[in-house]
Amino acid sequence: MTVSQIDEEVAKLLKLKAQIGGDEGKHQFTLKTAKGTRDYNPKQMAIRERVFNTIIRCFKRHGAETIDTPVFELKETLTGKYGEDSKLIYDLKDQGGELLSLRYDLTVPFARYLAMNKITNIKRYHIAKVYRRDNPAMTRGRYREFYQCDFDIAGQYDPMIPDAECLKIVHEILSELELGDFRIKVNDRRILDGMFAVCGVPDDKFRTICSTVDKLDKMSWEDVKSEMVNEKGLSEEAADQIGQYVSMQGGMDLAERLLQDAKMSQSKQACAGLTDMKQLFSYLQLFQVTDKVVFDLSLARGLDYYTGVIYEAILTQNCPVNVSATQNGVDEKAEEGVSVGSVAGGGRYDGLVGMFDPKGRKVPCVGVSIGIERVFSIMEQKAEASARKVRTTETQVMVASAQKNLLNERLRLTAELWNAGIKTEVMYKKNPKLLSQLQHCEDSGIPLVAILGEQELKDGVVKLRTVHSREEVDVSRAELAEEIKKRTSDV
Amino acid sequence: MTVSQIDEEVAKLLKLKAQIGGDEGKHQFTLKTAKGTRDYNPKQMAIRERVFNTIIRCFKRHGAETIDTPVFELKETLTGKYGEDSKLIYDLKDQGGELLSLRYDLTVPFARYLAMNKITNIKRYHIAKVYRRDNPAMTRGRYREFYQCDFDIAGQYDPMIPDAECLKIVHEILSELELGDFRIKVNDRRILDGMFAVCGVPDDKFRTICSTVDKLDKMSWEDVKSEMVNEKGLSEEAADQIGQYVSMQGGMDLAERLLQDAKMSQSKQACAGLTDMKQLFSYLQLFQVTDKVVFDLSLARGLDYYTGVIYEAILTQNCPVNVSATQNGVDEKAEEGVSVGSVAGGGRYDGLVGMFDPKGRKVPCVGVSIGIERVFSIMEQKAEASARKVRTTETQVMVASAQKNLLNERLRLTAELWNAGIKTEVMYKKNPKLLSQLQHCEDSGIPLVAILGEQELKDGVVKLRTVHSREEVDVSRAELAEEIKKRTSDV
Repeated sequence: MTVSQIDEEVAKLLKLKAQIGGDEGKHQFTLKTAKGTRDYNPKQMAIRERVFNTIIRCFKRHGAETIDTPVFELKETLTGKYGEDSKLIYDLKDQGGELLSLRYDLTVPFARYLAMNKITNIKRYHIAKVYRRDNPAMTRGRYREFYQCDFDIAGQYDPMIPDAECLKIVHEILSELELGDFRIKVNDRRILDGMFAVCGVPDDKFRTICSTVDKLDKMSWEDVKSEMVNEKGLSEEAADQIGQYVSMQGGMDLAERLLQDAKMSQSKQACAGLTDMKQLFSYLQLFQVTDKVVFDLSLARGLDYYTGVIYEAILTQNCPVNVSATQNGVDEKAEEGVSVGSVAGGGRYDGLVGMFDPKGRKVPCVGVSIGIERVFSIMEQKAEASARKVRTTETQVMVASAQKNLLNERLRLTAELWNAGIKTEVMYKKNPKLLSQLQHCEDSGIPLVAILGEQELKDGVVKLRTVHSREEVDVSRAELAEEIKKRTSDV
Repeated sequence: MTVSQIDEEVAKLLKLKAQIGGDEGKHQFTLKTAKGTRDYNPKQMAIRERVFNTIIRCFKRHGAETIDTPVFELKETLTGKYGEDSKLIYDLKDQGGELLSLRYDLTVPFARYLAMNKITNIKRYHIAKVYRRDNPAMTRGRYREFYQCDFDIAGQYDPMIPDAECLKIVHEILSELELGDFRIKVNDRRILDGMFAVCGVPDDKFRTICSTVDKLDKMSWEDVKSEMVNEKGLSEEAADQIGQYVSMQGGMDLAERLLQDAKMSQSKQACAGLTDMKQLFSYLQLFQVTDKVVFDLSLARGLDYYTGVIYEAILTQNCPVNVSATQNGVDEKAEEGVSVGSVAGGGRYDGLVGMFDPKGRKVPCVGVSIGIERVFSIMEQKAEASARKVRTTETQVMVASAQKNLLNERLRLTAELWNAGIKTEVMYKKNPKLLSQLQHCEDSGIPLVAILGEQELKDGVVKLRTVHSREEVDVSRAELAEEIKKRTSDV
């Protein structure tokens, strides 16, 4: 069957489906979100906001700008960028006009943006949702709509300086998010390719052998070797040689040793990669992050477009939080090309922008993607486990009253506080009970209550009550806003 | 064949297509974004961020939580909610599975969220992109992907208190954004319907006559009347009676007068609306916003789902900024149901959530939508017109050097500053020229340069240069971060 025959056949079937009523034949209304998607409730949003703030603060500290691109691109923009995974792209219906697809990641739209605007230098971050028609049933709850959180440096610079900054950023973000101890594995596509060459892997098997090596974080060496030899047809000798290399871990010392290695040193590619790896580690020393970074020859990463350094950060604490994160199916392995426990990954891709430029002009890029869905999931579980309630509002004070017929007075005071910049709530009831007003404060974590009564109005004061201690003190109305600011300055 | 058999067959065929290469045959390539969409560059993003911050600060001051919903919904969720405009909904391709559509606004997903989670009380904001297959050629550059910025209060409360808060919020946001003078028109769906009834409009013509009245902000009364009489078949007498009412504007006094009006007082609906209008104005007085709010009987607004108060804010200054905003086609008229110059709109919709509830349980809602694309456009033009450059980064200092071979020292100091929380940039070059380092600061608005040289290193100091004044002063390395913080505290 040819592609156009398939298209014809599919069109015929869909027409038939429409005729017999399609999904709309069932008139029973389904109250749900689309398969593989979810709403974020206010609590999840509060956590999400905190995580984003930490990450954006770090990106800005490093002088990054931000851009945004549309949620859909011309279908052809995405074509040929994701290999096998292209089948996971969401297409829009052909309603007469351009053929469109939802973005699959932020990297390809970024490369399209650079080429289209002829930008040759930029340090940018982009936080947005991407879409993949993964099978949630098969992958245990993986989302079809999820956030990516990317930082990239584009431009022709002296080697390894931007690459080192990306690793510094991963180090800063993971430290600040307090996710527990972590390690950042580093390798280089050129070292991998050179290694395959000197171990006797045929050129046309580099990719498939590389993707088998990528499984080493989940499978034993024996199983990986067996896949290489029995499924991929590699000689046992070559496999054993690879086995020796991929067990190696170290730092600058390992790069130096491998540069002297009788076999490795025969590959020009490997030597270029190893020389850059030495340089990278010297910058990482200056950035004081070598405690967490390890040069690991088993790190392969899936994506085709990497051309140089690659890296991946993993959480090393086997706390229950991690286990359940995996059970929740928030393992980003296939999505981000990162392993179980992995929370960030990236690398250098010097060829991608050139694929979009009409003249093939290259713009070297290096970037990192934070596995933000996994971070959310860990944060949510930490919040569940903690005694402290997650606040979903930032309200500082509730304007309340114990007596009847004071709605107007409550509204007047509320407006005064809003105008003074105080985050203020008031109940939308004529005569609410004091107890229900206090209960709302307890429930939503509002720390202060400004209570009005006939006496307070006469005296020109407000009774300011601290919710947790139940202390009450009269504050003159003129000083109320300042007093509230003072008492909630730590919120 | 049944629907599920078709789905199966389609899935099989698509899998086959993916295996044999799919659409990847065509090689000719178009470098553009999808029709009606655009990228946001860093400058636009900086402006967008400032506008969002102002608006979110206001929403939070009023105690609002935030939620998020997926970018696509089941097609049936959107069906029957938008009348004629349903043809503008983007459908996703049937790739075997649920039929999906991109969201058309944030209100319907909000109602779906409330019904699905059985939420009866919430004050929430939601800022996100929505999608409409409008014809950009016909509407001069209207976007097919654009932001909505919604604030809604759901729940059964005493009348008009949440409604008044929505108007207070519009007042606060428009004041803080400094868009020039504005007015907020208010009316009530019940007053409109009552007015139509007492003027002798047949029941089945309420909607179509209402949509003609809605054109009064763009057309003269003569033209509107002619449309009513000649196109919609209304009697001239009825049209003239409507004409008398829709020319009325006022405040609480007008509501009182109309309650005494011989004709109006015959309509129960109108009286209910007018009584609430009086109540609304009494709350608006407490909130001190009556200077900008006007009860205007010509305000109709398009959307079907409104059941009570409706409102719309317009900018009243005829500054060039407004004119060009309209020329840019950012007139949100059809999109938001608001008029030229309109920057916010909303109203009460007590029936929408019930459409999603299996038992039809109602959750009364009132909300407001800020016409954020128009605000962006005005802000962008203000920025263009102003001498002050829009900064796209927040970098406080650039670590630079005048001498060669100091890359390592620059990187070391940069890391020190990052670790101290200072937003710092450094050039990714071994030996950049001092001039090009200073030029970068000029270009991107970085206020300070920390210059390292052999002498400074020996003395344990850094030369701190203020870019605009070119003043230089030696600062001890230990005090550098503090000094930078002090000097950039106003940034």
